[in-house]
Amino acid sequence: MNRLEQQMQFALEVDKEKMIYRQTYRSDNETFENDAEHAWHAALMTILLSEYASEPFDVLKAVTMLLIHDIVEIDAGDTYAYDEAGIATQAERERKAADRIFNILPEDQAQKMLDLWLEFEAKETPEARFAKVMDNIQPIMLNAATDGRAWKEHEVKLSKILNRNKTTPENSPALWDYMLNNFILPNVEKGRIEDDTKV
Amino acid sequence: MNRLEQQMQFALEVDKEKMIYRQTYRSDNETFENDAEHAWHAALMTILLSEYASEPFDVLKAVTMLLIHDIVEIDAGDTYAYDEAGIATQAERERKAADRIFNILPEDQAQKMLDLWLEFEAKETPEARFAKVMDNIQPIMLNAATDGRAWKEHEVKLSKILNRNKTTPENSPALWDYMLNNFILPNVEKGRIEDDTKV
Repeated sequence: MNRLEQQMQFALEVDKEKMIYRQTYRSDNETFENDAEHAWHAALMTILLSEYASEPFDVLKAVTMLLIHDIVEIDAGDTYAYDEAGIATQAERERKAADRIFNILPEDQAQKMLDLWLEFEAKETPEARFAKVMDNIQPIMLNAATDGRAWKEHEVKLSKILNRNKTTPENSPALWDYMLNNFILPNVEKGRIEDDTKV
Repeated sequence: MNRLEQQMQFALEVDKEKMIYRQTYRSDNETFENDAEHAWHAALMTILLSEYASEPFDVLKAVTMLLIHDIVEIDAGDTYAYDEAGIATQAERERKAADRIFNILPEDQAQKMLDLWLEFEAKETPEARFAKVMDNIQPIMLNAATDGRAWKEHEVKLSKILNRNKTTPENSPALWDYMLNNFILPNVEKGRIEDDTKV
């Protein structure tokens, strides 16, 4: 297969991301969002909100990370953010998926995309740190817009959200402040998120 | 409303793009693709296929164009590529939509996004030219992958596809060659696309 054939085969393979559903309701409060929609939304938000990052970063690199970050779920499935059993095996399942799917691409691009995905997962560069903020804020925004329904249905506890966003305050103080006060705390007050932090 | 509130309001408003369905079947051949999925797919393909552009271009700019290019359809709806009655009023409907939706953003970003959308529509810069190739090749790839079903259902004629891709051969000779020989001509042969060019 020549280079362009490999690239087009990959482009078609990733279409399957549109059939991987997440546990976040779209703003119509009727249907679950899928991975492709989530990636589009988080990538666009990166462009619009880049000014709130704590450190300079390469916007195209962060956008690319977000456009590809869930491709592994084509094989590994969506692991809900607060599903502890799923999370225990997630890394291994996703690594195997990355090896299969990115290697549909020509070798140089496969390596580049795999490296970018690993960099995103490791959260140790400015691009990965801001991309992770976007990966977190986007579903939190939608959960708040749908009256906290997904949180309530999954009985999500405040400590879990805070733990998942441990580094968000330092990566983007303004966005963390906004998320906390506009999305998270009002849903704690309404009982959509269970407050397990006040013992 | 402060700057960040305006940005977050826009981020939530554009979620509606996920409920705007196109006339392209997803690769599962069961459901129509929506605008958000299409934008994600075309943006990702831009990053993977940029080497085939006839001229150097700013990848982040082209990706941003594709991420926002269908936002106007939240108000104006999807106009099918070969719907002539719809196309007659499309420009006016979409311009009105752009004025409403982009202006949810702070003034500087609203202007920037509106300018970018107009630049995409005008097809006169390297970024807009390559983004348009992606906007065309992505649904053609999916139509071919679903055995030409959407073309057949809409009785699409070859002359219309060629006309829509008038500038594709000069903007990306390699991609046009690939599209023509792998996606379009095989579907002409199978009768999924009606050949009206041989009179």
